[in-house]
Amino acid sequence: MINEEICPTEPWQVRETRLETELLAQMESVFALANGYLGLRGNLDEGEPHEISGTYLNSFYEERPLPYPEGGYGYPEQGQTVVNVTDGKIIRLMVDDEQFTVERGVLHSHERVLDLRAGVLRRDVDWESPAGRRVRIRSRRLVSFTQRAVAAVCYEVEATDHPVRITVQSGLAANEEQVKVSDDPRVAAALKDPLLAVEQDKEQHGAVLLHRARTSGLLMAAGVDHVIETPGAYEEETDVRPDWARTTVVTELPPGGRLRIIKFMGYGWSTSRSTEALRDQVAADLNGARYAGWDGLVAAQRAYLDDFWDAADVEIEGDPALQQAVRFGLFHVLQAGARAEGRPIPGKGLTGPGYDGHAFWDTEGYVLPLLMYTAPRAAADALRWRHSILPHARDRARTLGLSGAAYPWRTIAGGECSAYWPAGTAALHLNAVVARAVDRYRRITGTELDFGVEILVETARLWVSHGHHDADGVWHIDGVTGPDEYSAVADDNVFTNLMAARNLRAAAEACARNPELAERLGVGADEPDVWRACAKAVHVPYDERLGVHPQSEGFTRYAPWHFSDEKHGEPLMKHAPYFQLYRRQVCKQADLVLAMHWCGEHFTPEQKARNVDYYERITVRDSSLSACTQAVMCAEVGHLELAREYAWEAAMVDLRDLHGNTRDGLHIASLAGAWSAIVEGFGGLREDENLLHLAPRLPSSISRLRFNLRHSGFRLLIEADHENTTVTLRDGPEGRLRVLLYGEETEVSAAEPVTRPVIPVEPLLPPPQQAPGYAPGQDSVN
Amino acid sequence: MINEEICPTEPWQVRETRLETELLAQMESVFALANGYLGLRGNLDEGEPHEISGTYLNSFYEERPLPYPEGGYGYPEQGQTVVNVTDGKIIRLMVDDEQFTVERGVLHSHERVLDLRAGVLRRDVDWESPAGRRVRIRSRRLVSFTQRAVAAVCYEVEATDHPVRITVQSGLAANEEQVKVSDDPRVAAALKDPLLAVEQDKEQHGAVLLHRARTSGLLMAAGVDHVIETPGAYEEETDVRPDWARTTVVTELPPGGRLRIIKFMGYGWSTSRSTEALRDQVAADLNGARYAGWDGLVAAQRAYLDDFWDAADVEIEGDPALQQAVRFGLFHVLQAGARAEGRPIPGKGLTGPGYDGHAFWDTEGYVLPLLMYTAPRAAADALRWRHSILPHARDRARTLGLSGAAYPWRTIAGGECSAYWPAGTAALHLNAVVARAVDRYRRITGTELDFGVEILVETARLWVSHGHHDADGVWHIDGVTGPDEYSAVADDNVFTNLMAARNLRAAAEACARNPELAERLGVGADEPDVWRACAKAVHVPYDERLGVHPQSEGFTRYAPWHFSDEKHGEPLMKHAPYFQLYRRQVCKQADLVLAMHWCGEHFTPEQKARNVDYYERITVRDSSLSACTQAVMCAEVGHLELAREYAWEAAMVDLRDLHGNTRDGLHIASLAGAWSAIVEGFGGLREDENLLHLAPRLPSSISRLRFNLRHSGFRLLIEADHENTTVTLRDGPEGRLRVLLYGEETEVSAAEPVTRPVIPVEPLLPPPQQAPGYAPGQDSVN
Repeated sequence: MINEEICPTEPWQVRETRLETELLAQMESVFALANGYLGLRGNLDEGEPHEISGTYLNSFYEERPLPYPEGGYGYPEQGQTVVNVTDGKIIRLMVDDEQFTVERGVLHSHERVLDLRAGVLRRDVDWESPAGRRVRIRSRRLVSFTQRAVAAVCYEVEATDHPVRITVQSGLAANEEQVKVSDDPRVAAALKDPLLAVEQDKEQHGAVLLHRARTSGLLMAAGVDHVIETPGAYEEETDVRPDWARTTVVTELPPGGRLRIIKFMGYGWSTSRSTEALRDQVAADLNGARYAGWDGLVAAQRAYLDDFWDAADVEIEGDPALQQAVRFGLFHVLQAGARAEGRPIPGKGLTGPGYDGHAFWDTEGYVLPLLMYTAPRAAADALRWRHSILPHARDRARTLGLSGAAYPWRTIAGGECSAYWPAGTAALHLNAVVARAVDRYRRITGTELDFGVEILVETARLWVSHGHHDADGVWHIDGVTGPDEYSAVADDNVFTNLMAARNLRAAAEACARNPELAERLGVGADEPDVWRACAKAVHVPYDERLGVHPQSEGFTRYAPWHFSDEKHGEPLMKHAPYFQLYRRQVCKQADLVLAMHWCGEHFTPEQKARNVDYYERITVRDSSLSACTQAVMCAEVGHLELAREYAWEAAMVDLRDLHGNTRDGLHIASLAGAWSAIVEGFGGLREDENLLHLAPRLPSSISRLRFNLRHSGFRLLIEADHENTTVTLRDGPEGRLRVLLYGEETEVSAAEPVTRPVIPVEPLLPPPQQAPGYAPGQDSVN
Repeated sequence: MINEEICPTEPWQVRETRLETELLAQMESVFALANGYLGLRGNLDEGEPHEISGTYLNSFYEERPLPYPEGGYGYPEQGQTVVNVTDGKIIRLMVDDEQFTVERGVLHSHERVLDLRAGVLRRDVDWESPAGRRVRIRSRRLVSFTQRAVAAVCYEVEATDHPVRITVQSGLAANEEQVKVSDDPRVAAALKDPLLAVEQDKEQHGAVLLHRARTSGLLMAAGVDHVIETPGAYEEETDVRPDWARTTVVTELPPGGRLRIIKFMGYGWSTSRSTEALRDQVAADLNGARYAGWDGLVAAQRAYLDDFWDAADVEIEGDPALQQAVRFGLFHVLQAGARAEGRPIPGKGLTGPGYDGHAFWDTEGYVLPLLMYTAPRAAADALRWRHSILPHARDRARTLGLSGAAYPWRTIAGGECSAYWPAGTAALHLNAVVARAVDRYRRITGTELDFGVEILVETARLWVSHGHHDADGVWHIDGVTGPDEYSAVADDNVFTNLMAARNLRAAAEACARNPELAERLGVGADEPDVWRACAKAVHVPYDERLGVHPQSEGFTRYAPWHFSDEKHGEPLMKHAPYFQLYRRQVCKQADLVLAMHWCGEHFTPEQKARNVDYYERITVRDSSLSACTQAVMCAEVGHLELAREYAWEAAMVDLRDLHGNTRDGLHIASLAGAWSAIVEGFGGLREDENLLHLAPRLPSSISRLRFNLRHSGFRLLIEADHENTTVTLRDGPEGRLRVLLYGEETEVSAAEPVTRPVIPVEPLLPPPQQAPGYAPGQDSVN
């Protein structure tokens, strides 16, 4: 287990104090470097030992068969899986005649540091070979934010006591042995050695390898280039084979002598470009990197991140664990999305093979809001990807017998890849989540995305075609799966219904704002009226007797879940069949609570308090998306201490491997959710059509909270303690922003920060109990 | 398409007037011979051409993998598939140097007749070889009802114009080429050549081959023996190889000369016996057959069937199509179950590889009632099989988190083989259907099956563990799949709830009748009270506004199905996703209507009329189980002409291949359902705890109906025309039976038949319309 000793709480970095081989896989994810285009897992430079070796290019995938023992209409036949592409980060070291590995000899010290301000992974090793030869190894690795196809390693070896012969083999390797991805031999076979060698080019100090994914046919190129610095003589040689290349440097180091190798990596891939074009692109990327040099790349990285942190940082005084974790989360969300540029942001970012590298609704729901407030350009790019896959979504809607567009539950390139129909056909809510992101982008940045209107219109059409009016004219959405995956195929899921209604209204309003665009999209004269009418008539089930909202029709009438006295070590779905889970009062994740967070205006404060109380008792958080939502709503109804525990859980999901699967990649949405827990939970951040809402209220552990936002082109700083809140507009002098501060409308200008006393919330109900073993926070998590 | 010309309507036989190669597969099923233990498809003697060559031993199966692209808790990993075992029915013929096949030369005539009274398949062929040599071939085939492991062929060749050299090769062949069973190469591989040769024995006039199924390990033996009769000289030789044996007879026939070969086949299989024991069993079976001789087997077959028809025949005057079809159905149901003796009755009987050879709830629901009234011993044997798989069902209940026993949705040997969880975990109703069969057996035969009490108790326990009481004490069963597979995972399915309540009451009553047995089964003192209380509190949803029962909670509020103007050529589930089907008002099969048939006492006549009217409009009969139920309930509410159309559809399902899949085997439950449509529909047959109900009412096409039943050890004859009904007890002189005739209680004795005038039902509503293209009957079916 990752703990304070191995990974101490420090405000601006994640540091591994020693190497624990049983934590190798988790730390590979934690130390992953990426920029949204290229991702490198935190594998050791020497490649081994590793749990999952990973180098990923956003959207470079291989197809895999989806074999069903009992097929069904609309089941996708082909899936998509992220590929571990040609690995350029391997640097093997021979000390005299002993290959360096942490598994042999004496590891006098080992430290790795992920520096969140520098955007560099540093490693410092003091190793003594079995033959008694001692060296210091110092490596620095980055994936450039400013040159998106470039990664680099600065690798130094220093002899200490004895003169040693040093051989460094800097590699490039395709088709590395893969982690087992499937029990099905067909699938495993399809994904074994997925890269077919196309061409190899040997350069003066490196090589370029071109490969094609066997079934998807996607083409990729990976190249390396080297700068070698050492005072003495050395020999350099490069060997190239179809699946690997190796640049070897041999030298003798006297005690205190040092060899320094800068390794530049360049990557490219394409669905359509020629091998020649791709080869040249990678060569140019390597030229660019060499031109910048290691120091230039490091400096640019720092400047990029300084700019990011300037308008994104969250400072949490008094709660160092949350402080570290929220920055860790911000950093990894940025890494996942910064340079995706029209490609998806997968659930795991580019940090591991989990979920086959697929993107889900988490991105629009949890990740993009953070980016909209901190790096809006990246958010727009992610929405641009959604727009680019509209043709797939339209096809899918036709397949499902619906109009408009039905986005996939999980995908890389746009086609539905879910082999489970209650998700892959029935989880329609995701379309409303995409639409909400489009609409929020406009509210937060002040800019309407033209392509976004098309998304709003096509998703609105989907809802109208699936929903229906009953004999009383009430509009229903039946048989869908809401966010809570333990209640699939339900009727009138409140979250889905409210989000669909919002989707419909947003589409109507967008058409009103953009009449010409609407006409180009073929929006009929009365179509927006139909959308508004459906939205107005939407059914929101309410249990009068209990005074709570059932998360879907009939939910509060279902049998309770029989909790045992202790929490199970694994998710309920691993030891209960779906048909039992689906019609019991147990929630994998906050669903109705999420509806209250995202569609808060539809609930009274009293309903919110009672609903939180009700669902707290039955939500087991088997999804990592749950804790952040519970944090926000617990904070809103006044359970600030409980909210802090949920915020901690969301934030620490990977730094403490709370779900036991950090090995497969980080939980990007939960990390973004930690930001949401703090900024929307303790900061009270919301926005409506006209106003930014703020209402900071801090739990006892946090003495002071400062957070930065971008809004409508402004930078905003919110500072709060237990007495006062101050809102500062940092851009001026003309800037003015209307803010609802503790419910009171006010205007903030660059000249005049606004300070108001904190108005606390008196909770209507005492803090709720969770099911046995399911209380949040450090101690209760297995 | 099978039509009147190819297959004319004749009262006691099914005759094929000529060979249509595109109907080969369907006629292989129609002409299948079986006795419940052994089944031979109606393949041509010479083996080819064939569509599906089939020889089946009840419960002899091979395992197959069930690969899931996205697995789930409780999904079975291994399936079971019926195996085409060693084929003993092949008799190849050489006429001079030309191998006889219907595909070459001139087929002057070809006729096959399935004789329903003789239990023999006759074939008469007049063939001229391409070389101009003409022969008459006459074969007779039977699968013995009296010697269950034995089949036999009497094969005669007669030279006509020219002297010819005749070579007959009588074969025994394992691992015949299989029809494609799966698109999945793993599954196909697992089922290719499933039989491993174990031992071969060459006998004087035949051979025995022993094989083992590769994965399931089941052992089987097949043997043949021959009697050769011809006036002239002949040579006989037998060759034996691991996978085949061949007895060759060569002779010269003068014009008018005849060769006659009697071929006896013997089969055996075992999970546990030794190869020696099995080899000896088959040898003994062959001895027994030879001892009886062909004529002896034929005579015993006739006697067996005379006895069956005596107390099972249904005579329908005025409607020859129904007349033929109902006898065809009775014959095939008998073939499916007669000698199963503790083995299941699969959905396709032993007539083809459809549904992998699995048994479903259809058996207890549709097939066993017919057998209880006509061949009760076979019904008891089938229930004995259910009892024998209780250990599997208990394990399955544990896996599903439930108490008692949860029977499999589909199986051969008892383990769940369904790869679709809404069926394989959620279709709990089948347990109540099994329980109902147990209880009906007692009512109909007057005999309590001791082992049946255990079934009642264990299924009752299942219901109590899954159902729950709401805050008002109403008992609900949520998230289950009822009979209608287009509305899966629903709450409070009326059929399921009423059947579960009946199951609970039947268990409580059985324990009261058998207190010692109950104690041995560990039934707690208050357990039956709990069962009764649940049954009493069961929720039966009712839509007050529409005055109909929703088939499950909320059903009548769902969106209508958008029917196109014409019926689709294939089931809706082939062109619509589940989540769309499941929450629309469209029924694959009668579900609520089945509840009214099987639990009629819970509905008023007015409710029945209105419910029939409502569901008629939305039921598409994509299941072959639907038409018979609709026939029964249409008849009950007075739509007799409509009922006749449904009866026709149920009866002709295979004789006209109405579902387009007769090739894979016959629809045994639908064939039994045709009997139910006539006897329960037009005859008004029902039974309650104390009385047999009868209320014949005939549609205009039927001038007179006579049907026989066995009840409480008596034979009963019911005769009705449009004026009068007469009930005769044929066993006496002490026999007395209490009957509710047109609602009036009366006693029938052997001495005094009872005659009453028909009391017609005035329908409350006019005959309902079906959805466009879905009206029943000959013309509307594609």
